[in-house]
Amino acid sequence: MQYKQSKKYSLRDNIALNGKNHLLSVDQFDRESLENFFRVADLMKPISRRQKISRILEGAVLGNLFFEASTRTRVSFGTAFCRLGGSVCDTTGFTFSSMAKGESIYDTSRVIGGYVDIMVVRHPEQGSVAEFSRATNIPVVNGGDGPGEHPSQALLDLYTIRTEFSRLGKSIDGSCVVMIGDLKYGRTVHSLLKLLSLYKGLKISLFSPPGLEMPDSIINYASVNGNCVDIKSSLEEGLDGVDVVYATRVQKERFTNPMNEYFDKKFQIDLSKINSNCKKDTIVMHPLPRDGRPGANDLSIDLNNDSRLAIFRQADNGIPIRMAIFAILLGVDHLVNNSLRDVQWSLPAYIGSDDSPFYCL
Amino acid sequence: MQYKQSKKYSLRDNIALNGKNHLLSVDQFDRESLENFFRVADLMKPISRRQKISRILEGAVLGNLFFEASTRTRVSFGTAFCRLGGSVCDTTGFTFSSMAKGESIYDTSRVIGGYVDIMVVRHPEQGSVAEFSRATNIPVVNGGDGPGEHPSQALLDLYTIRTEFSRLGKSIDGSCVVMIGDLKYGRTVHSLLKLLSLYKGLKISLFSPPGLEMPDSIINYASVNGNCVDIKSSLEEGLDGVDVVYATRVQKERFTNPMNEYFDKKFQIDLSKINSNCKKDTIVMHPLPRDGRPGANDLSIDLNNDSRLAIFRQADNGIPIRMAIFAILLGVDHLVNNSLRDVQWSLPAYIGSDDSPFYCL
Amino acid sequence: MQYKQSKKYSLRDNIALNGKNHLLSVDQFDRESLENFFRVADLMKPISRRQKISRILEGAVLGNLFFEASTRTRVSFGTAFCRLGGSVCDTTGFTFSSMAKGESIYDTSRVIGGYVDIMVVRHPEQGSVAEFSRATNIPVVNGGDGPGEHPSQALLDLYTIRTEFSRLGKSIDGSCVVMIGDLKYGRTVHSLLKLLSLYKGLKISLFSPPGLEMPDSIINYASVNGNCVDIKSSLEEGLDGVDVVYATRVQKERFTNPMNEYFDKKFQIDLSKINSNCKKDTIVMHPLPRDGRPGANDLSIDLNNDSRLAIFRQADNGIPIRMAIFAILLGVDHLVNNSLRDVQWSLPAYIGSDDSPFYCL
Repeated sequence: MQYKQSKKYSLRDNIALNGKNHLLSVDQFDRESLENFFRVADLMKPISRRQKISRILEGAVLGNLFFEASTRTRVSFGTAFCRLGGSVCDTTGFTFSSMAKGESIYDTSRVIGGYVDIMVVRHPEQGSVAEFSRATNIPVVNGGDGPGEHPSQALLDLYTIRTEFSRLGKSIDGSCVVMIGDLKYGRTVHSLLKLLSLYKGLKISLFSPPGLEMPDSIINYASVNGNCVDIKSSLEEGLDGVDVVYATRVQKERFTNPMNEYFDKKFQIDLSKINSNCKKDTIVMHPLPRDGRPGANDLSIDLNNDSRLAIFRQADNGIPIRMAIFAILLGVDHLVNNSLRDVQWSLPAYIGSDDSPFYCL
Repeated sequence: MQYKQSKKYSLRDNIALNGKNHLLSVDQFDRESLENFFRVADLMKPISRRQKISRILEGAVLGNLFFEASTRTRVSFGTAFCRLGGSVCDTTGFTFSSMAKGESIYDTSRVIGGYVDIMVVRHPEQGSVAEFSRATNIPVVNGGDGPGEHPSQALLDLYTIRTEFSRLGKSIDGSCVVMIGDLKYGRTVHSLLKLLSLYKGLKISLFSPPGLEMPDSIINYASVNGNCVDIKSSLEEGLDGVDVVYATRVQKERFTNPMNEYFDKKFQIDLSKINSNCKKDTIVMHPLPRDGRPGANDLSIDLNNDSRLAIFRQADNGIPIRMAIFAILLGVDHLVNNSLRDVQWSLPAYIGSDDSPFYCL
Repeated sequence: MQYKQSKKYSLRDNIALNGKNHLLSVDQFDRESLENFFRVADLMKPISRRQKISRILEGAVLGNLFFEASTRTRVSFGTAFCRLGGSVCDTTGFTFSSMAKGESIYDTSRVIGGYVDIMVVRHPEQGSVAEFSRATNIPVVNGGDGPGEHPSQALLDLYTIRTEFSRLGKSIDGSCVVMIGDLKYGRTVHSLLKLLSLYKGLKISLFSPPGLEMPDSIINYASVNGNCVDIKSSLEEGLDGVDVVYATRVQKERFTNPMNEYFDKKFQIDLSKINSNCKKDTIVMHPLPRDGRPGANDLSIDLNNDSRLAIFRQADNGIPIRMAIFAILLGVDHLVNNSLRDVQWSLPAYIGSDDSPFYCL
C-alpha cells in the first residue's frame, strides 16, 4: 500500500489527540497510522541523506523548549526542522526566569504559542508537556516528560527495526526481540513495547537486573495479537537466536555495591557474547548515550566495527522521523515530494569512519 | 492618513537618535512617527498571523545579546527576525567570558557589530545599551537595560490598546486608563505613560502600594495635551469605569511581612472585581509574567476565559511590533507589502485554547 | 595568478588531512594553498561587507559545538555559516549531559555527524577536536582545543596583514613583524608564526616577559626561507620600525606580585609608544579580547581613534575567513561568485563609530 494523503484519509486527523494536532504519546498510533507515518519518514530520507533539500517550512518557526538538558535530542529536533526550511528558537534549562517567578505552564505555553508555529517541549515532570498542550492549539510535541513518554524515540527505534529488516529481507511480524537492562525506569523500552504490540506473532524476551523488571501493566499491554513476552534468566538465554537486541543503560546509582558486582558480570553486551549467541543478521540497538568507559556496565565499544551494531544508524533515523512529525502535524507531508531540490555541496560517502559498506549515503 | 515611505518622509530618519538608526528609548517618538510606526506593524499582521511569509531580510543576521535572562523577550525578538527571513545568533547570560576578562562594552559592541547586521541588547545595567550603541553604526535595539527603558514593550502595549480600541470602536484620545501595582520600579508603566502623553484628553488613574508610587517626574511628563493623571486610594475606585486596566506584578520581596498582608487584600485583580467595577468593553492588560499561584498578589487566573483579558493578545503583538522595529531600522519597511507569499502549512483557527471568538487568526 | 577551482587543482584536496576534509591545524597549508585560500576569502568580501547575499549552503546545517565558552568565536562561525545561507545549531558548555554520563567523544561525534553537515568544535582539551574528527567523515573544524591549535584565528590574522598590506602597497615577503606579550601559552602567536614561515625574508621580533618566551621549537620552525627571528630586550626596541605589531594579552595570574609590577611598566602599548617608535603605515593587531581597564596590562584604548589600530578590521575578517573555510570544506567555493544577489536592506557606511575613512563598507 502506497501512503497517499487524500481527502478520504488524513494521517494528521488519525493520530490527533482530542481533535488537536499534538504528539504526546505512542498511544496515538494504530498499526495503519504507524505504517503511514513511516512512509512519510521514508519521503524524508533523501533529505536526511543530504541528497536533496526542501524549503517547505520556509517562514515557520519552531520553539524548541528544553527545560531539561538533552543536547542530542534538542539538536536532532532542531536540525530536522531546519532541513524542512524552518527556523528554530531554542531555550535550554530553567533560564525561563518567568516560571521561577510563579508563571504557570498555561501562561508560558500560551505566550510562546503566540510566537512560534510548533513547539517541542522537554520537561523533567511527567504530565507537564500535556499541560503545555492544553493551553494552545499550536502543535506540541513531547520531547520527553521525565518518567512519562518520549514518543519520537520509540518511533525512531521501531523505524530502525523496520529499515534494517527491509534491508535484511525480514518482517517485524513474527520476529524475535530481546530488551536488556533497566526495564523498569526506561521509558524508551515501555514505549517501544507498546508500539511493537501493534504487530503480530512477536517473541519478546526481557532480561533485567532484579528490581528493574518491566512493569506487569506494560507486559499485559503487549501480550495481544499473538505476541508473547518472556522473561529470561540469563543474558545468553536472552540473546539466543534473536533478530533484535535492544540494550539500555543501567544507572549504577540504583544499586548498592554488592548488587553492582553481581550485576556487572551478567549484563555487559560485547562482541564475544554477540558472536556466541546471535545470528549474522541480528541487529544491536541502544537509545544512547552508552557508557563507553572500560569498566562500564553497558554496550561495549568492541562492537564499533561490527555491522550488526545499528546504534548510529538508529540515531541517524531521528532526523527523518522528526521531519515526518513536523510535516504531518503542520499538514505539509503531501507537499514534500514536489519540494525537493538537489543539494549543491558535496558529501562523504559514509558519515562515520567505521560505517558499514551497505550504509552508504 | 495612509503611511507611505517616500522621499519626502522617512520614518527611520524621524525616529533616529543623533543621526543613528538605534532604538533606545520611547522618547524617540512623536505622535506622527508613533502612528506611522504602528502602520508598519499593521503591515506585519498577515505574517504574525501566519497567513503570509516574507523573506525580505534573507541573508541578514541578528545578534540577540541577552546578558540578562529573559527567555520570552529573546524568543519574541528572535522569532520576529526569523519571520522576516533573517537568521539569529543568540547569546545568553554572561557566557561572554571576554567581558569578564576586562573587555569594554565598546570592544564587544564593535566586534559583534562587525559580524551581524543589527543587535538587540538586554543588559542589567541602566545606560549599558546606550554604551553599546555609541560604539557602532549598526542599529542597536534596547531590549531592556535594568531600571532604564524597554521601548519595544511600551510600543507593543500601546499598539495593543490601539488594536483593541479599533475593534471596539474607541479612540485613545480621551480614554480612561488605570495603572495598578508597582509604579515606582516598573519601567514598563513609565514608558507607557510617556507614550500615552503623546495623545490628548486622557484620564489616567494610578493605584499603587505605599512606597511604590509613580515618580513625580513621570507624572509631570505625562500631564500635557489636556491629559490628567489622578492618584486613587482604592482598587475599586481605580477600576471604576476605565477603558484599560494595566496591572503589573508587585515583588513581595520589596515588603516586610505586615505590609505584605495588607497588600494582598487590596491589590489582587480578579473576575469579580472586574465585573463589579468595569465595563463590558474594558480591556485588562499585564506586561507578564504574572504570578498565577493561588495566594499570589497578581492578576488572577479566573479571568482566563473572559474576553476582556487581553494579556495574550498583548504578548502576541510583540511579534508585529518587533518586526516593524527591524524593518524600519534596516530600511526595508516600504518593501514588505510586495514581499508577501502564502504560507503552505496549516494553522489552528485560534492560538490559545481559551482564545475569544473575535480573536481569530 | 587567479585562483580557479578546476579538475587539475582542488584546494580542498590540497589542504585535506589524511584524505578527510577536516581543518584542524595550520600545518595543513603550504604557501600555494594558503594564497588560494585567501582568494576564496576575497570572494566572500562582498557578502561580509553586506553588499551581497549568497544562499549557496541553503539547507545545510552547522553543528557549532562549544564545550568551552567563547561567545565571540561561536557567533563569528555561526554568522559566517548563516551568510552562506545555512542554518546553525549551537551547543554551549557541558550541557552535553551525555558526555558526563560516560559517553565517548567517538559516540558524540558520530551521532552529531549524523545530524549536521559540518561541525565546529571548541573544547578545552588539546587533541580532543582531532578525536572528534577521527569518528566522522563529516568535515570538522577546530575552533580551539585548549593549548593546541585555533587555525581560523591564525588564518584571519594573516589575512588581515595581507589585506592591510595590499592597501598600503606592501608585501608580506621581507616585512617586519613584532610579537609582544605571552608568547609561551598563546596558541595564536604560535600558529601565526608557523604561517608566516611560509613567506620569505621576514624579520620577526619577539618581546615577552621573562618566563613567557616563545618556545624554541616554534622559533626553529619559523627560521626557514631566509626568515630571521630575533628576541628583543625592550618594548621600544621591539616596536622600532616594524610593519606589524602583534600584541597579546598577558594573564596577570601567571605572575607573583613583584614580577607583576615590573611587568606593568614594560609591556603596555599605547599611542605615545606607537608614535615614538613606529611608522605611519604600521598596523597594530591583537587577537582580542583586550583588557581595556585603566591599569590593565594590555593594548591601550587611547589608540581607538588611530587608523593604525587594525584590531576591529582584524575581527571583521573572521567572517570572510570562516566563510571560506566552510565553502572549501563543503566543496562549494567555485559556486560562490555566481550565487551572489544584492542586499535589500540599507547599511551604515562604516561599522564602527571610530572606523577610519579608508575602511568603508
